[in-house]
Amino acid sequence: MSGKGRLSIVGLGPGDVEWITPQAMAVLNGASDLVGYSTYLDLVPDLTGSPVRHASGNRVEIDRAKQALALARSGRQVALVTSGDPGIFAMASAVWEVLDAEPEDWSELEVEVVPGLSAMQAAAARVGAPLGHDFCVISLSDYHKSQAVIEKRLTHALLGDFVIALYNPASQTRCEMISRALALAAQHRDAATPVILAHDLGRAGERHEVSALSDVAPETIDMRTIVLIGSSRSRVVLRQGCKTVYTPRTYPDEPV
Amino acid sequence: MSGKGRLSIVGLGPGDVEWITPQAMAVLNGASDLVGYSTYLDLVPDLTGSPVRHASGNRVEIDRAKQALALARSGRQVALVTSGDPGIFAMASAVWEVLDAEPEDWSELEVEVVPGLSAMQAAAARVGAPLGHDFCVISLSDYHKSQAVIEKRLTHALLGDFVIALYNPASQTRCEMISRALALAAQHRDAATPVILAHDLGRAGERHEVSALSDVAPETIDMRTIVLIGSSRSRVVLRQGCKTVYTPRTYPDEPV
Repeated sequence: MSGKGRLSIVGLGPGDVEWITPQAMAVLNGASDLVGYSTYLDLVPDLTGSPVRHASGNRVEIDRAKQALALARSGRQVALVTSGDPGIFAMASAVWEVLDAEPEDWSELEVEVVPGLSAMQAAAARVGAPLGHDFCVISLSDYHKSQAVIEKRLTHALLGDFVIALYNPASQTRCEMISRALALAAQHRDAATPVILAHDLGRAGERHEVSALSDVAPETIDMRTIVLIGSSRSRVVLRQGCKTVYTPRTYPDEPV
Repeated sequence: MSGKGRLSIVGLGPGDVEWITPQAMAVLNGASDLVGYSTYLDLVPDLTGSPVRHASGNRVEIDRAKQALALARSGRQVALVTSGDPGIFAMASAVWEVLDAEPEDWSELEVEVVPGLSAMQAAAARVGAPLGHDFCVISLSDYHKSQAVIEKRLTHALLGDFVIALYNPASQTRCEMISRALALAAQHRDAATPVILAHDLGRAGERHEVSALSDVAPETIDMRTIVLIGSSRSRVVLRQGCKTVYTPRTYPDEPV
């Protein structure tokens, strides 16, 4: 192809088609090529076009970024597809790492980021308003940083009494970090602090539960779970037999 | 009306119609009544229905929440409209505060939260991938908490080397807190740390700039600005004459 290519890094949101923005849908419908982790490509709804699909495995982020960039440079209209928001623990940083390492190679190429709803937002919406006050967002994956760094971040988030959203809390081969994170939280927060576990948001089998911090069973948490830990101010409101959670807008001078 | 009413707390996203999710659009199209701060009601696009509009001022959040709840209890299909995500520094917490204070009054009423893209996501997308690693989200408004609490939170966010998103950085009557926040950041971060200021996202006159921390002019920041402060790892990549910013996925054991 000889036309002017473009790379769009597109967020689908957390799985349900009702959360895909019109901007994302327009980009997907105009794409000549879709690139992405196979699980995410499966979330793409029916499109008006018939783009070529380039599916890849989960952990080859830099290879996938380079593949998408190279296709775009060859003149293709490429949508690099992610779930959630591509800017939050997803592919946008991987693409920028390539742009930064090889600036001359990609200087002429048009690259855009198309944001999407992130899992924490959908999880919060399902249970009320737990993210209604200051919060921190932390990935528990030790693939890109050490456990020491993760624990330092968690400690500051706890000392600052932030609500905490935990991404990548566990995987098939990694389940210790979430137990350590919950134990650390228990050192700083009341046993009754509400914790939200949301599984498979916007997909078949979606479910969520609200537990007290002391009652959370780490073995129920996997790579498709998002975890929200309340601050000292977060409260449970029982509605129609279900626990909902919110964090008030007002914060007293001394933590309760 | 005698039918079963419902309250939907709906996020429009950061202003542009291309960011309104299909879920939000369906709720707005099905609403009998729209309730909201007048500026946000003006962002609602043309609808298939002709809902009654109940506009109110900015600071009467609890009154607005009660008005929306009462309308819904009377059998109306009410959309309580906010920009961004209603769960992030917006109306969902205010509604839940009322539900919590008067649980009996509202126990039968159906209440749902419809999430939306938040300003930090749109700002990040405009410049690259600054939120690509762990980050904190802090409101600088001292309307609901003291400056001491804000400074404590900022300090922990800085000590944890989080990227920091600042909401409500200033208002017409309050401009000191952003100066203090930037001064505090300068104590912990390099003078060259990239800072993103995004103004009027998704609206007429949208603009953004990327500056070094030491060069940010606080007087250019107002209530319609979102501020992102990079971590020690965030990097500027010059592309086609413009500064883009990303935070790498990888974090070394010792901060650089």
